[in-house]
Amino acid sequence: MGFFSADIKTINDLFVHMLRDIYYAENQIVKALPDMIKKANDPQLKQAFQAHLAETKNHVKRLEQVFRQHDEEPSGIDCPAIDGIIEEANDIAGDIGDKTVMDAALIAAAQAVEHYEITRYGTLIAWAQQLGRDDCAALLQQNLEEEKAADKKLTGLAESRINQAAA
Amino acid sequence: MGFFSADIKTINDLFVHMLRDIYYAENQIVKALPDMIKKANDPQLKQAFQAHLAETKNHVKRLEQVFRQHDEEPSGIDCPAIDGIIEEANDIAGDIGDKTVMDAALIAAAQAVEHYEITRYGTLIAWAQQLGRDDCAALLQQNLEEEKAADKKLTGLAESRINQAAA
Repeated sequence: MGFFSADIKTINDLFVHMLRDIYYAENQIVKALPDMIKKANDPQLKQAFQAHLAETKNHVKRLEQVFRQHDEEPSGIDCPAIDGIIEEANDIAGDIGDKTVMDAALIAAAQAVEHYEITRYGTLIAWAQQLGRDDCAALLQQNLEEEKAADKKLTGLAESRINQAAA
Repeated sequence: MGFFSADIKTINDLFVHMLRDIYYAENQIVKALPDMIKKANDPQLKQAFQAHLAETKNHVKRLEQVFRQHDEEPSGIDCPAIDGIIEEANDIAGDIGDKTVMDAALIAAAQAVEHYEITRYGTLIAWAQQLGRDDCAALLQQNLEEEKAADKKLTGLAESRINQAAA
């Protein structure tokens, strides 16, 4: 944790802390997505997860660029928020018999991940701008836009195909 | 967990499961907000948290109405996603020396909670409509709109006052 730790004294400390949080999160998502791709049944959903895995790998690289621009070594910190969300998304212990119900559950799990990233990138961009780091904000904005687009694509898939098939 | 459990066979099973997830979450937020109100320094932030506590208690009641309309007993299930987010929001073990930095951290934590709720309500509304439960969807939509408004209010506060004071 350490989010409310006495080590955090300035907005810059918060910024670096949250950069490490989202860096950890993106790396965990890179690990979680292959299982979700495997479990997905709808070809369009499978393809959406595959495309997002490629994007997520790119998000990790952009974050490493932000760290370097800000004179910090890229490193992650373990945070219970994303761990909990990914545990739910990545739980492969059980199984849902119906394939379209599984797809609906996968979309819900993936959208919870997207929304966690959307809120964290929103905060990071505000803090970067506050710190006069428009260069960092611009890179973070690119990740944010791709997360929002991924979330929107999943909503579209859920509404147009998967929920209908599962009902 | 049980999110991918073999017990879940239909969209209705998913709907009830996630209703229990968000019911648990809203109840945890009712417990977490008083500490956040205590820690907030900016009077407008304190007031925003107080207003959201009243709203959140009302969300719990609306969810109980959704359960009843759907012939289910109101009950929660422990889910690691919201537990992790709230652990981060509710961590009062440490302390941030600077009051405005603390406020910025509190806003970030609260917005992570809001976004979790926004994604869950979005999913629940889609599934309710799919199940032909427009009555349930309408109640859930009211909660969703209030979560979105709370998130927007926090963004406004962060951008206009608190980040500026903390930088």
